[in-house]
Parts: sequence; C-alpha cells; structure tokens
Amino acid sequence: MEIQKLYQQYRDRMQKIADLRYSNALLQWDQEVYMPSGGNAARSRQIATLSELAHEMFTDDTMKSLLAQLSNSSDLNESEKKNIALTSYDFSQQEKLPTTFVRELSEATSLGFEAWIEARNKNDFRVFEKQLSVLVELKKKEAALLGFVGHPYDALLNQYERGATVAMIDKTFARLEPPLSALLEKIRSATQIDDSFLHGNFSKDQQWKFGMEVLRQLGYDFNHGRQDISEHPFTVNMSAKDVRITTRIDEKDFSSMTWSCVHEFGHALYEQGLPDDQYGLPLGEAVSLSIHESQSRLWENNVGRSMDAWHYFLPVLKGYFPDDFAETDILKFYKGINKVQPSLIRTEADELTYHFHVMIRYDLEKKLIGGELKTADIPAYWNEQYSKRLGVKVPDDKQGCLQDVHWSHGSFGYFPTYSLGSLYAAQIFSSAVKNIPGLAENIRNGDYKPLSDWLRISVHQHGREMNSEDLCRQITGEPLNIQYFLDYAVDKYKKIYEF
Amino acid sequence: MEIQKLYQQYRDRMQKIADLRYSNALLQWDQEVYMPSGGNAARSRQIATLSELAHEMFTDDTMKSLLAQLSNSSDLNESEKKNIALTSYDFSQQEKLPTTFVRELSEATSLGFEAWIEARNKNDFRVFEKQLSVLVELKKKEAALLGFVGHPYDALLNQYERGATVAMIDKTFARLEPPLSALLEKIRSATQIDDSFLHGNFSKDQQWKFGMEVLRQLGYDFNHGRQDISEHPFTVNMSAKDVRITTRIDEKDFSSMTWSCVHEFGHALYEQGLPDDQYGLPLGEAVSLSIHESQSRLWENNVGRSMDAWHYFLPVLKGYFPDDFAETDILKFYKGINKVQPSLIRTEADELTYHFHVMIRYDLEKKLIGGELKTADIPAYWNEQYSKRLGVKVPDDKQGCLQDVHWSHGSFGYFPTYSLGSLYAAQIFSSAVKNIPGLAENIRNGDYKPLSDWLRISVHQHGREMNSEDLCRQITGEPLNIQYFLDYAVDKYKKIYEF
Repeated sequence: MEIQKLYQQYRDRMQKIADLRYSNALLQWDQEVYMPSGGNAARSRQIATLSELAHEMFTDDTMKSLLAQLSNSSDLNESEKKNIALTSYDFSQQEKLPTTFVRELSEATSLGFEAWIEARNKNDFRVFEKQLSVLVELKKKEAALLGFVGHPYDALLNQYERGATVAMIDKTFARLEPPLSALLEKIRSATQIDDSFLHGNFSKDQQWKFGMEVLRQLGYDFNHGRQDISEHPFTVNMSAKDVRITTRIDEKDFSSMTWSCVHEFGHALYEQGLPDDQYGLPLGEAVSLSIHESQSRLWENNVGRSMDAWHYFLPVLKGYFPDDFAETDILKFYKGINKVQPSLIRTEADELTYHFHVMIRYDLEKKLIGGELKTADIPAYWNEQYSKRLGVKVPDDKQGCLQDVHWSHGSFGYFPTYSLGSLYAAQIFSSAVKNIPGLAENIRNGDYKPLSDWLRISVHQHGREMNSEDLCRQITGEPLNIQYFLDYAVDKYKKIYEF
Repeated sequence: MEIQKLYQQYRDRMQKIADLRYSNALLQWDQEVYMPSGGNAARSRQIATLSELAHEMFTDDTMKSLLAQLSNSSDLNESEKKNIALTSYDFSQQEKLPTTFVRELSEATSLGFEAWIEARNKNDFRVFEKQLSVLVELKKKEAALLGFVGHPYDALLNQYERGATVAMIDKTFARLEPPLSALLEKIRSATQIDDSFLHGNFSKDQQWKFGMEVLRQLGYDFNHGRQDISEHPFTVNMSAKDVRITTRIDEKDFSSMTWSCVHEFGHALYEQGLPDDQYGLPLGEAVSLSIHESQSRLWENNVGRSMDAWHYFLPVLKGYFPDDFAETDILKFYKGINKVQPSLIRTEADELTYHFHVMIRYDLEKKLIGGELKTADIPAYWNEQYSKRLGVKVPDDKQGCLQDVHWSHGSFGYFPTYSLGSLYAAQIFSSAVKNIPGLAENIRNGDYKPLSDWLRISVHQHGREMNSEDLCRQITGEPLNIQYFLDYAVDKYKKIYEF
C-alpha cells in the first residue's frame, strides 16, 4: 500500500506537469492560429514560464526521490513499472538541462517563430538569420548538455527518436538512395504524366468544405478535435480528448490543402487513440516521432494517394469543383496526383523525391550542429543542394530554406523522422493489408473504420509501451525494413509509368 | 541598490504569476470559444492546476519575505511603493485561501460552466442546480475564509469592488430605486414607442460585418485584439497587447450583437490602455469592476445609445440592411433603440429597467450566500421577483435564471458592479462632455479618438493607482453621485417620451 501511495503521488505530479505542457500547447496553437500579432511579446514569456515551471517540477528533488523509491518495486503492476522506467529515462535526460537554459530556449523559439513569419512575408532569409543563429547555438549547447558519443547531432536526434544516431541515419539513407535514384531514373525515361488539371483556381471556401468532408469521411472525431488555418499545418493535443489539426489553402492548387488534411488526420487519429486514463504518463504518449510520422504518412500516401481512396473521393471532389474535374476520370486523376517530379516544397513533394528533401535537410542540420556550416550560408548551400540532388533551381527563400517552420521552433533532428515515418508506414500498411480482410474494398467504399480500428489496436493504444523497433516487430514480425517501401514504390510507379 | 534588487525579484515573480494567470485566461477563452466539447475534462484540470500554481507562487514564503522587506522602504519610487502596498493587500487576502480550496473552486467552476451550457441547451435549470449548489457552498466557505464584519456576502463583494459592502450597496439601491421607479411610471403613462423595425431577420453574416465595422470605427485595435463568437459575450486579456472580445448574434434582433460589441469594446479599450510596462503588477491592472463596467457602459449607453452616434452609424447600418431600415429616419431609430420596456434579458435591457435586473440578482445572491435561499428554489424566486419588480412573466429558465454565465464561473458579488458601473459612467461622461471641446460633433462624425484619448489619460493609464472613489473624485471632482445618472436619464427620456 505504501508503494501505491507513492505511485499516486508520482501520478498526480506527472499530471500537473502535463497540465502545464498541454496549456503550453494551447498557447502555441493560439500563437499560430488566432493570436493578434501584437500579443507575441507577452505570449513568448508566458510560454517560457510554463516551460520553465514544467521543467522545474519534472526535475526537482521530489520527483527524483519518488522515482528512486518506485524504481524496481515489485509492488507495481506492469504498466506502472513501465511508466516509472520511462519517466526515469526522461528524468535522466531532462535533469541535464538547467531551468535557465529551458527558459532561454523557449524564449528564443518564440522570437524565432516571429522572425520566421516576418522573413516569409518579406521572402528574405536574412530577416530570420540572426534569430536562427541564436537557436543553432542553443541547440549546440543543448547537445553538449545532453551528451553524446559520436556526433553532437546524435543528442538532438535522440530527443525525437530514442537511440537514433547519425551513424544509423547515414546507413539508412545510404541504403535508400541508390534504389530510389534508380527508380527515379526509370520514371524520368518514361512518358511523362499530365497533371495540369490539378492546377487552376479553386476557391478557398470550397476547398475548406471539401477538406472538412474528407476529414469526416476518414473518421476524424470533431467532438475531440477541430481544424483551423495556419501558416504551416500541424497537429497539437491538449489531451487525447482535444486533438486539433491545421491546414493551409493554396487557391491555385487544391492538393496542398487536401494532403495536409489527410496527413494531419493521421497524426490526430494517433493522439486521439492514446489511452486517456494514462493522461500525463508515458503510456499516454506516442512512441516516437518516426512512428507518429508513420501514421500521418500511411494515411497521406498509402491510403490518400491510392486509386482505392479516390474511387470514393473523386466523385465527392467533382461535387465541389464540377467544372474543374468534369473531364477527369479516375485513372487520369490517380496518375496526376502521383506524378513524380523533383520540386521545391517538401510537404507537396511526391512520395519518392520527398526523401531527397529530407536528406538535404538532414545533411544541412548535421553540418550546422557539427559547426561545418554557418547559418548565413544556409541559402547558398540549400540552393546548391537542391540543384545538385533534385535538379531544381530555387527561385527565392520562401520556396527554399524558409519553407519549413521547424527550425523556428528549435526543432533540429526532427526531419529524418519524416523519412523513417514513410518507411515504417509502408511496412505497417503491408501488415494492415494482410490482416484486414477486404481492406481495399472498404477504402473504395469510403469505409475507414476497419483500418482505424486496426491501427488503434496495433499502434495507438500502446502509447510508449514499446520502442519504435519493438512496436514495428510486434506488428509486422520484423524490425524496420526499407524493402517494404521500395517494393511498394516500384510496384506503384511501374503501373503508373508503365515501364 | 539592495532594495532595487529585491524589487526586481518581486517583479520577476509577479510577472511569472501573471504568465500563469494570463495563460489561464487563454484556456478559458478557448473553452468558451473554440474548444471541442470533449476537451472539457482535461481543460478543467489544466485550469485548476494553473490557478493552483499561481496561488501557490503568490502566497508562498518567498513572496511574503519579499513584501515584508519591501514594505515602507524609502528607496522605492512612488509607483514601486504603490505596487508593493497593493500587492501586500492582495497577499493578505489570498493567503487566507488554502491552495487546495483554490483548486477545488477552479475545478468546480469548470464543471459549473459545462453544466450551465448543458442546462441552457436543455432549457432546464435543474441540470445546472447540482453543480451550482456546490459552487454556492464553496463561495460561502470562501466568504468564511476571507472573513467579514457584517454580511458574509461582503467578503465576496470586496473581491470585485474593494470596500464594497451589503450596507453600502443597499443604501445606493435604496436611493436609486424611488426616482427610477418614478421615471418609469412617467414613461409608462406616455405614448409608447414603436420599435418593431428593430425586429426582423438579420443575417448573421451581415450582422458580423456590421459589428466589425462598428469596432473599427470606434477604434478597436485589431493588432492587439480580436473578436469571436461565444455563448455569453465577454472581454479577456492575455496582456495589454492581446485583449479579446466576444459577441453573440441573434438573427431576429440585430441590437443584441450591436450593443454587446460596443459594451465589450469599452472593456477592451480599458485593458488595452493599461500601462504595458507594468505587466503583472497592480499598476498594470484595472482599478475595480465598477470602473471597468463604467467604461463598457459609457460606450454602450452614453455613446452607443446616443443620437449623435447614430447620426454616423445609421447610414452605415442601412448599407448592410438596406431593406430593413429604408423607412427608418434617425429620430425613429433613436427612439426605437431607447425604448423603455421591462424585459427578460439583462444584457438587452434598456438603461433604466437594467438596474432592476441587477437589483434582483443582488438580492438573490445575498440570500443565497446568507443561507436564506436554496439553489433549488432559484427559479421560483427569480420568476416571482421578475413578476413583482419588473412585471414580466418568465416563460422558461433560459430567459430566466439561466441567462447569465456568472454563477457558473463562481462569480458571486459581481452583478452590483454593473449598476455602479452605469452610475460611474454617467458621472464620468458628464466630465468628458465638459472637458472635450466639440465632443458631440466628433461623435456625430464618427471620430472617437478625442474621447478615447481622454479616457486613456483620465482612467486607463492609472491602473490601480487610486481606488474607484478616488479616481472618480480626480476625474469629476466628487465621489460617486447617483444624481448624474438620474439627471442624464430624466433629460434623455423626457425628450424621447415627450413628457
């Protein structure tokens, strides 16, 4: 009984820390969605204070002593033991960061976000550069505080994907790149696809309505979430019962909004499926960013860019834009949305060239954190890499190195999880196909419940019970294997490009 | 220098507490404006945790010791001394409330708000009654903790209006009621006004646009605020640089939206005008609720229901609703919007019967807190009072005792400040007329800057420098004098009702 009382104290404390963290999530959501511009200075300090207090509470002596007393106790059940072990690991990481550092980083990211927005409006990286260099220095400091064996970037990768290292990511990318390049070469030699019907003038209002209908059909729970507009689409949760997504609308291209809706839906479905009774505890949290991304990419690509899905959704889309798609049949549409073409914007890239966007950023971040590249040199390096590896000329910063919000948030080490996510997605989806009888037909009929239910049971409900690798093994019978993605890709694009 | 270091510590601490309070304000804003319904349970505990932490930080030994060291120090300037004195007073009040009580109250109000919304949707007071009785018991407990000399309700009044007591409010209302009743009697005997043109079918969209134009014209600063829709209109601030308002729209009656916009604008202008360099400190806060309300009522009534204002705004309104007001000239319009008629909804009442709504609630709250009335008996008592004092029959709870959000927030002792606010408004506005040359003409031309500037200097910028009474004396040369309101009312309605 003594141990149960201690566990209760631990739980209460963790839940109060979660209250602070989730309150901060709302402050940040508001900052990107509804906050009047003049509110940013106060908002920055409010976010910093909440971060600081959460960090202080999490790393204080009370927590230390509770964890020490609860560690390895045989009077706890398996879930409780798991929570204590995971919290102890998190504690060991967090206690390396002084509270003053946490506050400093938080304030710098708020200013960073403001500078990024301004730089985007002015289409000028130099407006962002000064604050970005502050952030890079802070992230280097963070890496030093957290410690690392190999590359300083390892310490940052580890924050999003426990155990991930430069050595490991380098190896994965080294395996992925040659077959991907070969596939791209085949596509380049094939007859090109006409996707001109995707570009036109699509009213914001109709796009919004279509996006909302897609979300409803996929099964997004609006009693426990909502969608809004922001500069960069994201998912945020204030609990498993309040998981919000955002999108953006480009009037010239309806696909920007469409795939951001489906992508964020995948993230949100994961968060909504986490066990609510574990609020504030590790078992109530997502495994890792790569698994999180596997959920968004699975919905976006394996489902959202499939012929089956558009069997149902193309007629719906035609209802919203009768003139634009009158001449478009399902095959033409399917080929169009899967057109492979090196492009400028990562979030709008096809499934294959997407990985090159990630590799460029990964390489760039590694060099920034490793001290081989200066922030002032980012645009030149970025543009050179895009020319060299994707063969595209970057016309301006907004379509180049200013396109992603991540650095302004101080998120370095995040991008590789996007590629890992796609790789996991292919592997997990192949399991779904094997395990859900009639899945293709469900999708053709717009019935997503069987897939959602299967993901809930296979992935969502586990929280942080297993790490990415073990979860993947439990679902698919083996650890991450990039062959699933390559097989999926070859099979798909062979048919589309008829080679 | 030692003292200045201590003051800096005090200031840092107060600002962190403000960060928590203002973060909580955003959580509450979101709860009433955008939060998906399923998010309420987690939101309740998040608000409770932030309240608890703010209270804990404000009443801890560090703060106690800082205040003790800084009190009566001659090394502080006048503003600093004022902040310390006011904080010491606030501390003396807050330290009487145990943190567990603060958390309990906060959680009960979140549940209370949820129950109130549900009760309104079901139009059934009984749905709210259970949670309301919890709140009443907590408020009685709060009164006992805070202490009082006369009536327990004094302790609650004092939270919104320092020094206010039942004895004082009773006296004010006893003075106000007879002349007000006499005036109402005269109006009742006069020829009645036709205001049928105010009722019709006004599209939500057009109303919203008109309301936004009114706000822009009045000078609401959208870089430091925004307007949204909520069940009950309110103003909330996350700093002086982020002050938001809400409104509601009744398609049958455009005036509900219009006057809520103008009313909340008055509150927001006050908050936006508080000195931003005093963030988190008493001098950065409003004097009291009655002065706050004087600002909203001054704009709503003395400006918003004046002939001068509609000289400018009627043509604007006609632009939005050309068919509805084609036949309406300024005199007919002015008389219509000032029609005096006992009604059911306080926020939509005319300027005279308004006070009876407040008196009924005051009397009822006094009895609830004094233990003379049970929550279960509220509807019957409410309806009886409305029949007796206003001569109207209450058809259902939504138009009766469920109309106001305040109790669900645990706000008891708040309503009297609405009447005091109107009384202060009349007195302050009469000073404005005397001191701003050409004010009437400015208003006729839609130029509100001279009035805003005068209010900024006379009221807003002072923060809590003086109490309500002293501020009133400084602006008008005398303490609160209800004769200003009575003179204003007699003069106005004599002309309108031609008696």
